[in-house]
Amino acid sequence: MSDLQIRPATAEDVPAIVAMLADDVLGQTREDAGDLAPYLTAFAVADADPHQHIVVAERDGRVVGTLQLTIIHGLSLKAATRGQVEGVRIHRDERGSGLGTTLMEWAARKSKELGCALIQLTSNGARKDAHRFYERLGYSGSHIGYKMDL
Amino acid sequence: MSDLQIRPATAEDVPAIVAMLADDVLGQTREDAGDLAPYLTAFAVADADPHQHIVVAERDGRVVGTLQLTIIHGLSLKAATRGQVEGVRIHRDERGSGLGTTLMEWAARKSKELGCALIQLTSNGARKDAHRFYERLGYSGSHIGYKMDL
Repeated sequence: MSDLQIRPATAEDVPAIVAMLADDVLGQTREDAGDLAPYLTAFAVADADPHQHIVVAERDGRVVGTLQLTIIHGLSLKAATRGQVEGVRIHRDERGSGLGTTLMEWAARKSKELGCALIQLTSNGARKDAHRFYERLGYSGSHIGYKMDL
Repeated sequence: MSDLQIRPATAEDVPAIVAMLADDVLGQTREDAGDLAPYLTAFAVADADPHQHIVVAERDGRVVGTLQLTIIHGLSLKAATRGQVEGVRIHRDERGSGLGTTLMEWAARKSKELGCALIQLTSNGARKDAHRFYERLGYSGSHIGYKMDL
């Protein structure tokens, strides 16, 4: 394994992040890498929010993975702070390399460091490989994830 | 129906919110209404965060419902902003009154007003009645909700 770094994303990383979001069995119909403007606007808002952490994994100067960690302070579960993971993507060239595990371990470590009692995410029912992956990492699929378009 | 108001929670509402969190088939073993300090600390953090909205439903001066709405700015789904709902609780005396629907409609309206393209939540697999409720409201249980204690 060559030099790997997990670091906060910058606006310069947005094109590489969007390319990974779009290069995905579900993402290919849901993303539009041809128009970066909305992604850059959303990145600026998240970047200014101290409870949002969009990170990239960089190997040899190239962005090869990403995820977003949101820290949610709430009242339930004895006022447990939650780390919530969204938008986990691994570059096609890196799948099976263990990078997903490294990124998710980073998210758990960072969440713990920031006082979280639990970490959570939802995964589309169609992503069977992802489900096995999260279960191997110790996650329990105890919940149903509901979504509704507005 | 008497006078019902949905409004931002204040620190004074925390005891009533915690009482509702604890008066729940899962919450009764997970909450500790005898020690409000951690709840008050978490409330102060959420209250200072412009992306967090802890609200209560008040009827005739009495707190009878609560939920927390978190606005998450992210990159996936064409940089969709998401409204995320946590900690939905309805006072025992109000169950079946339609208040749950009213509160969830508030959350969807508020999310839309704040620019969200979707609204999401997870519900424990054991809460079968809640699942029917969310499906009636138009939510799709398309995802698995994974959690891991840290």
